[in-house]
Amino acid sequence: MTPKKKGLFITLEGIEGSGKTTQIPGLRAFFNEYGHSCLVTREPGGTKIGAKIRRILLDPAHKNMASNCELLLYFADRAQHLQEVVAPALQAGQIVICDRFFDATLVYQGYARGLDRRMILDLHRLVFDGLLPDITLLLDLAPAQGLARAWSQINNGGRTEAESRFEAEKLQFHEKVRAGYLDIARRDPERFHIIDATQPAADVGRQMYTILKHHLD
Amino acid sequence: MTPKKKGLFITLEGIEGSGKTTQIPGLRAFFNEYGHSCLVTREPGGTKIGAKIRRILLDPAHKNMASNCELLLYFADRAQHLQEVVAPALQAGQIVICDRFFDATLVYQGYARGLDRRMILDLHRLVFDGLLPDITLLLDLAPAQGLARAWSQINNGGRTEAESRFEAEKLQFHEKVRAGYLDIARRDPERFHIIDATQPAADVGRQMYTILKHHLD
Repeated sequence: MTPKKKGLFITLEGIEGSGKTTQIPGLRAFFNEYGHSCLVTREPGGTKIGAKIRRILLDPAHKNMASNCELLLYFADRAQHLQEVVAPALQAGQIVICDRFFDATLVYQGYARGLDRRMILDLHRLVFDGLLPDITLLLDLAPAQGLARAWSQINNGGRTEAESRFEAEKLQFHEKVRAGYLDIARRDPERFHIIDATQPAADVGRQMYTILKHHLD
Repeated sequence: MTPKKKGLFITLEGIEGSGKTTQIPGLRAFFNEYGHSCLVTREPGGTKIGAKIRRILLDPAHKNMASNCELLLYFADRAQHLQEVVAPALQAGQIVICDRFFDATLVYQGYARGLDRRMILDLHRLVFDGLLPDITLLLDLAPAQGLARAWSQINNGGRTEAESRFEAEKLQFHEKVRAGYLDIARRDPERFHIIDATQPAADVGRQMYTILKHHLD
């Protein structure tokens, strides 16, 4: 299933706490100002069936989930999402902004969890004809900074030793995610735009709009 | 994930109403008599995670499920099932009897629903190293016979015109499933044993035990 693209397929990528969600309303307003209707969606969970798949993926009781099972559930969510949401919108000439897409799968399951990256790429080619976005905006940030920020918002900074150990493990994982994102961005500089996410949100937004304006003109 | 096989991996295949479930207790007893511990399982739904995937697959509200999504959910279920159930049992030298496996996916999604069979085979090779059972027992029966039998059990034979139309569609679908099973069995006669499922259940059982006894000796 490869959508015949008439619209523009934009994805947002980045580690947790990189500020993707914060940027959505501004992006929507930006495109509306230019007279473009714009669909905002996300993976996993952009459809009713996908929301149920997402629930299985994120259930903390599923600690024993096989890494292949996890990978295939992300692909199943994507298959439904592409057919039901993304492809029809692109065919109708809409701009689609998707919070995470295939790059996230390659980075989280491949670079960070250690699944064979060749296999993930082959799977993507086999099932989705290797479909990639037109533009990918990567919000880049040191995980320590992102997680510390997120943590202080939740807990006012107080944490136990066990929590610190857990955070350290999480940090290592997110370091791998970040390195993965930067690696694939480096390999595909035409599509990827790396944006410094340590900037104030308004500056991150302005930088995105400049990139997108350039693309629209 | 390919289990290092020490045990014996046996699958049961066949259209609905072919009597697979009826044969399970007899098969279990047969192996116990020979002093073999034997694990009976099924796809989809042979694990906790798989049961949740199965619920998504079988929910009648999901009529708009993309065919790729359906296929990938069957694969996700299989990934979990192989890692959590089948592989450990085979490694421990057990006999595993699985009610449906990859052949069912190839037949239902490929031959009957029309998904590209090459793609399904490539996916199986990519994700599961093309793992196949040691023995596959195919319970063969004309769908008209199987469905008529099932129908009379539910409805005492009375049906509306709409129901008859629905049945006719179902019949066509199951004809494709049957033809698919017979085609792959013909291509792999070493592994497949076709059993006439119109026989009385006891005779079906006896024919199975003869095949299995031969394999054990």
